[in-house]
Amino acid sequence: MEDSKNQQKETTKIEQKLQNGPFFTEKMENKNLFATDLFPHNPRGWEETSKFLKSIVELLLGYIKEENDRSTKVLEFHQPEEMAKLIDLNIPEDPMSLNELIKSCSEVLRLGVRTGHPHFFNQLSQGLDLIAMAGEWLTATCNTNMFTYEICIAHFHFNGERGGAIANLYAVNAARHAVFPRAKHLGMVSIPPLCCFTSEESHYSIKSAAAVLGIGADNCFNIPTDASGRMLPRALEEQIIKSKEEGLYPFFVCATAGTTVYGAWDPIEEISEICERHNLWLHVDAAWGGGILLSPEYRHKLAGIERAKSVTWNPHKLMGSLLQCSACFVRQEGLLFQVNQMSADYLFQQDKPYDVSYDTGDKAIQCGRHNDIFKLWLMWRSKGMEGYRRQINRLMDMAKYFTERIKATEGFEMVVDEPEFLNICFWYVPKSIRSVDLREKMSRLEKIAPKIKAQMMKRGTTMVGYQPDEHKKRPNFFRMVISNSNVQKVDLDFIIDEIVNLGYDL
Amino acid sequence: MEDSKNQQKETTKIEQKLQNGPFFTEKMENKNLFATDLFPHNPRGWEETSKFLKSIVELLLGYIKEENDRSTKVLEFHQPEEMAKLIDLNIPEDPMSLNELIKSCSEVLRLGVRTGHPHFFNQLSQGLDLIAMAGEWLTATCNTNMFTYEICIAHFHFNGERGGAIANLYAVNAARHAVFPRAKHLGMVSIPPLCCFTSEESHYSIKSAAAVLGIGADNCFNIPTDASGRMLPRALEEQIIKSKEEGLYPFFVCATAGTTVYGAWDPIEEISEICERHNLWLHVDAAWGGGILLSPEYRHKLAGIERAKSVTWNPHKLMGSLLQCSACFVRQEGLLFQVNQMSADYLFQQDKPYDVSYDTGDKAIQCGRHNDIFKLWLMWRSKGMEGYRRQINRLMDMAKYFTERIKATEGFEMVVDEPEFLNICFWYVPKSIRSVDLREKMSRLEKIAPKIKAQMMKRGTTMVGYQPDEHKKRPNFFRMVISNSNVQKVDLDFIIDEIVNLGYDL
Repeated sequence: MEDSKNQQKETTKIEQKLQNGPFFTEKMENKNLFATDLFPHNPRGWEETSKFLKSIVELLLGYIKEENDRSTKVLEFHQPEEMAKLIDLNIPEDPMSLNELIKSCSEVLRLGVRTGHPHFFNQLSQGLDLIAMAGEWLTATCNTNMFTYEICIAHFHFNGERGGAIANLYAVNAARHAVFPRAKHLGMVSIPPLCCFTSEESHYSIKSAAAVLGIGADNCFNIPTDASGRMLPRALEEQIIKSKEEGLYPFFVCATAGTTVYGAWDPIEEISEICERHNLWLHVDAAWGGGILLSPEYRHKLAGIERAKSVTWNPHKLMGSLLQCSACFVRQEGLLFQVNQMSADYLFQQDKPYDVSYDTGDKAIQCGRHNDIFKLWLMWRSKGMEGYRRQINRLMDMAKYFTERIKATEGFEMVVDEPEFLNICFWYVPKSIRSVDLREKMSRLEKIAPKIKAQMMKRGTTMVGYQPDEHKKRPNFFRMVISNSNVQKVDLDFIIDEIVNLGYDL
Repeated sequence: MEDSKNQQKETTKIEQKLQNGPFFTEKMENKNLFATDLFPHNPRGWEETSKFLKSIVELLLGYIKEENDRSTKVLEFHQPEEMAKLIDLNIPEDPMSLNELIKSCSEVLRLGVRTGHPHFFNQLSQGLDLIAMAGEWLTATCNTNMFTYEICIAHFHFNGERGGAIANLYAVNAARHAVFPRAKHLGMVSIPPLCCFTSEESHYSIKSAAAVLGIGADNCFNIPTDASGRMLPRALEEQIIKSKEEGLYPFFVCATAGTTVYGAWDPIEEISEICERHNLWLHVDAAWGGGILLSPEYRHKLAGIERAKSVTWNPHKLMGSLLQCSACFVRQEGLLFQVNQMSADYLFQQDKPYDVSYDTGDKAIQCGRHNDIFKLWLMWRSKGMEGYRRQINRLMDMAKYFTERIKATEGFEMVVDEPEFLNICFWYVPKSIRSVDLREKMSRLEKIAPKIKAQMMKRGTTMVGYQPDEHKKRPNFFRMVISNSNVQKVDLDFIIDEIVNLGYDL
């Protein structure tokens, strides 16, 4: 086959590039320098310090350049046991020299997955925004902590949390406190048995929060969804009523704005009406979809979000900020403080020479916290509101293009016919099973995506996720996600061709 | 007074330096470039991209150099409302130019607290290790996620969590699961009313964990401590017995290794015997003190830690790794997985082409996680075991030197006469109250440390924390912490002189 020949040639070229790695050869001239020779340990070591840091930066610049070269691999795959041989992870008795450290860095760069590569579609976070990266370099250098105003970089009003899962935990905890404040001091033993509701397609962190908070994962009910993955409001209300009849105390509903697999939008308006009827806390998990608010053309998908009592939003996903950057917004002023503060007077003194309401530490479960917000601020300024609008609209256009290409290419089948967001779910059906009966086809399809993915990883050419949907009895299917703001149509064409190349003859 | 004149001269010098800020003036030559002109959005923009990133690096190098110049300020203090005028935080409609972004960075660097300054003693984390910083720059550039092997940088076996508070939450949750696994699915309503124990000097995160987990903060008992801040084992056992009599179910004891205020070491051996007698989970919160294990000369302070079922350890404190870097170790293999896994098949497929036990995501409450471990690994290699041993021993020597100076200087009084770690707690007694009676002295001392600290911040010369101890009825006292590996005796002398200068006449 002509195609696979071309592919082979391409792969050889990539392998050569990786081995040559022209950018991974920065070294200090003086071979016997150690960390102790650097500033500030050695006050006369500024020149060498500057050289060392610049060597690291050269390495990183080389990495960035190579990561964006479409003819390079997304990863150099090795089994864990091989990896252990390729890179020495041990901590030695004696210090390693600066050159050895630079070599360690270079090895790690070579062996890691390039999540910013234009052919990486595996997670919701993709691409590497260089302004956000510069912001993160600055944050590392400042090494400031978020918990009191006096040691914060500036006063960003933002309940930033590390990761959407923890943000969701904050929301469920705040909701519990709003309805039964005594639980904080007296425990769950002092209040009725709570239960909460989220769609079967929602992120597992809601169920996890129920487990952690002592509500019990089984008391977090999974509400069925329609064929596109949207929560069925009628099923929600039925489950609320049933739970009450069974002696449980419903208090919290999570609507998902942009589900992880299908990118589906739960009908927030309808859900919020049910919440009002039953006096329940409405939380919107917009970790993935929240960024769409920045686009006037698409923000209607979040209609009703203004009725939520809390919202989770991860700028490190759609907005392309670096990992991590998550926020939990809670409408009721003071609630986060009330639920989380433990009167740690030794940390949060009230007799400081400034307005201590700027000390945000007592609002959080965490104590020391990395400053995750600076990079988002810098990046957002670099784009302006206008830039984000264009970026998000462009990604939606790319998703439409990819959907059209999938529909028009032989062997591909959509799982959800009209994707509503940047997730495009599809099967690839190898030639041999195109004409078998439906039941056998479904059974054999289960193994196709894993096989293709395994080949992709070994070749290192691209990465895209897959999963089955057990609720809807759908065998393993690919979930393409497009969130890298630099993705081009050729990248989308590439992945379609690659899947055909790897899967046609299976 | 001669002293205050000298001080004034010094301050003027510092202010001039800050205003000139020779390092904060990097600019791109071309004034009208924007983020969209950079790589990869503009494939021909490599040269400008490299220039932009190097400008940021020059800014950071200048910051590092200045931060280590002892004649510069630790901070330029402004009230929150002034700060709002000094720095424009708004997100504009249109993109800002690269030069404007560089200016934003430079302003933030100027206005932030220099936590790496040799006169910063305010928190447990101090100093800026440049190797760890380089590691963090690399991590930002790779932007990898911790949750599956395939997208991890390499296979570090490490249950890294963001911050010791979350690590402590993991430990309490794991302990609950070990004794009552059904709580995960059925909630606290299905098990007896739990209670746990920690010293009155322990970090508030243990109480906070009890609140979050639905145990109730009041069911986390504060055990009294001796004059140095060490938990009293007899009081622990009495409280355990009393709680059982009151119908509670004791399950968890936290021993603190290095308390936040006094740096005290709870007697782990004795506590572990009590735990064995009553069949309780022993957790050691070694967030602050854990690093002392690296010193053969001092590791005896942690004797008994090997009997713990879980340990929290924050390398970003004593080991000087950048924020954040925290770990929760749990002895029982598989327990963290059992308690936290939610069978998120769509994220953690079992049919991957490698050993999926390397996918650590299902062990964590968090989903997307920043890679916090790389910088520690790189830094540790730069020092070797030997380097850390020397670093920690040297810090202990510095603490002894400071203690001796405090004891020998008129007006200073130790709160705990023989500090056991790197926290040195003391009062400064102004001349006017040295001869008043004890009760009045104590009452007037309450206001002294806050006044001195406020002056320190306004002058920007140094930062050191203070707090009262309500349990022991000790009025506000300073808590000096020495963890910056580059601290010199002159820096310790400086803070003593500064306190005398600011406090003598109060």
